[in-house]
Amino acid sequence: MSELKNDRFLKALMRQPVDRTPVWMMRQAGRYLPEYRAVRAKAGDFMSLCKNTELACEVTLQPLERYEMDAAILFSDILTIPDAMGLGLYFETGEGPKFRKPVRTEADIDALEVIDTASDLSYVTDAVTMIRRELNGRVPLIGFSGSPWTLATYMIEGQSSRDFARAKTMLYTQPELMHQLLEKLALSVIDYLNAQIRAGAQVVQIFDTWGGALSHAAYAEFSLAYMQKIVDGLISHHDGRDVPVILFTKGGGLWLEKMAGTGCHALGLDWSTDIAAAKSRVGDRVALQGNMDPAVLRADPAVIESQVDAILNGFGAGPGHIFNLGHGITPDINPDHVKVFIDAVHKFSAKY
Amino acid sequence: MSELKNDRFLKALMRQPVDRTPVWMMRQAGRYLPEYRAVRAKAGDFMSLCKNTELACEVTLQPLERYEMDAAILFSDILTIPDAMGLGLYFETGEGPKFRKPVRTEADIDALEVIDTASDLSYVTDAVTMIRRELNGRVPLIGFSGSPWTLATYMIEGQSSRDFARAKTMLYTQPELMHQLLEKLALSVIDYLNAQIRAGAQVVQIFDTWGGALSHAAYAEFSLAYMQKIVDGLISHHDGRDVPVILFTKGGGLWLEKMAGTGCHALGLDWSTDIAAAKSRVGDRVALQGNMDPAVLRADPAVIESQVDAILNGFGAGPGHIFNLGHGITPDINPDHVKVFIDAVHKFSAKY
Repeated sequence: MSELKNDRFLKALMRQPVDRTPVWMMRQAGRYLPEYRAVRAKAGDFMSLCKNTELACEVTLQPLERYEMDAAILFSDILTIPDAMGLGLYFETGEGPKFRKPVRTEADIDALEVIDTASDLSYVTDAVTMIRRELNGRVPLIGFSGSPWTLATYMIEGQSSRDFARAKTMLYTQPELMHQLLEKLALSVIDYLNAQIRAGAQVVQIFDTWGGALSHAAYAEFSLAYMQKIVDGLISHHDGRDVPVILFTKGGGLWLEKMAGTGCHALGLDWSTDIAAAKSRVGDRVALQGNMDPAVLRADPAVIESQVDAILNGFGAGPGHIFNLGHGITPDINPDHVKVFIDAVHKFSAKY
Repeated sequence: MSELKNDRFLKALMRQPVDRTPVWMMRQAGRYLPEYRAVRAKAGDFMSLCKNTELACEVTLQPLERYEMDAAILFSDILTIPDAMGLGLYFETGEGPKFRKPVRTEADIDALEVIDTASDLSYVTDAVTMIRRELNGRVPLIGFSGSPWTLATYMIEGQSSRDFARAKTMLYTQPELMHQLLEKLALSVIDYLNAQIRAGAQVVQIFDTWGGALSHAAYAEFSLAYMQKIVDGLISHHDGRDVPVILFTKGGGLWLEKMAGTGCHALGLDWSTDIAAAKSRVGDRVALQGNMDPAVLRADPAVIESQVDAILNGFGAGPGHIFNLGHGITPDINPDHVKVFIDAVHKFSAKY
């Protein structure tokens, strides 16, 4: 593999000094970019794009052509694992993801097999390998997975949900069955992320999109415990470098200390958390990634710049900050505003 | 007015000792009750039920006939104020509330007038008066309003929203315009809640359903500041008693100290907050109301009882706890499970 030319992101994750705060955006390869929409139209539906190695590689690199990003993130979906388990993932226009065969009963869960990435999800590792080659050392590549709890909600509900009625009913009435499902998912995620690391992912992020819907006690038992298991099971050193792990629980601002206690390297913060307060709570245990409200990107350039500066100022001096949005960028954002955002991070961060 | 026979709720709000932890449920008069559905069918649509004094009174009292609740809450909607401002509130089956005339421009906001409850919302104060008479001192009556920010989101979006794109765009690009709207709403809420207090509401709760969608800085400036203004503007003593104020920001667990600093008497907690941690954070400044996940009511009675006990145990000894759910009860809950819940609170709380 070619030498890494920009290691700002990796250094910040390990809480080492950097010249400027590194920045990337969740969902940076996405619908706000016209060149993404063009490739997507060529590929057909969303999963066909994920499964087409060349096109997945192409869209992964698109934001790097436009902006001075400090990391690339594999273009894929968080629901590839349940799809590989045979649940039949599909997307209907204007709606979220759906499964043809949701998981509802003990028999459904018994029938699930822990995935073998090499045979079941080779399209993902193929994409990772190709992206690393095409990146040619420009920036590091992030691999990712959904958290077991987040995957379980989609698998049980069969789709997105507001209140997770079925998943929470299982959690409270059949906790051992829920644990059985989460255990299979955690083992699958470990296999999946380790395969991504072997294929070339230099950092991995676990997206716990729906952990924040749980009570504090249920979060610890049904979401964090399985992310802990994953952190413990990941390859920690590969190709001469540590492989940092980022945990992101949307709505998890109350639980940062517990998350930092897993041994992960960084926490993703959504915008509800004051980054200054977060920093004083987690101390020097982890780096922090975040946390501008993506809605700010709808505002005028001057507002974007002042919001960037406020977050940089909140984190203050010292290592361990990766700038990001508090959640994925939305399709309605003007790409010129993204440039303002990325440039503002680099411009203003030099002074901290 | 007749003498209050059960003042457990009022005492707990003032952090005075009680024999058993008082309990009520957000949305306790609601669709999970067959007798509610019967009255609702008679009334026609939801707003017709709210505007019919006799029927609104009848459904307010229904849960008290079934369960040993320690408080009644006025049956109404949080969107009565924007409806009275002329936005044309309506409900479509299977969807949330909608407005015929959403507020989008400076001219729209200029045209809004602070409501005069006596002339614009007399159906609400009439209902309060009748409910107090019919309650005949059994338990105290809670009045309520949506928070200015929460009302503003519906008024600007014209309906429920996932990401509040329009409201946040206004907040970030035209903050002074947003402040103008919030100021009119805060003055309206003060008038509205004071009218409810004069009509007989013995406690008031402010529902900040969407405050948790804001960044920590935007929450302070655009939601909490206006709830502060309301707390400052409310009648603090009426009919020989203090009038306690409860603030509830869903998803506001990170901001409890700030909320307690407004001078309110109690904070509503959603289920993401550990009540033991909340108690140690706010100290003796406010009482705490909550915070069981409503999803627990779908589980078996033994699970409901153990979850109730865990929360009582979390709060521990000492005054200032009102048991509640972390959000409204959902329509699919078995009414027998509600009885298990209410009885468990009374049964287990005596030991603390």
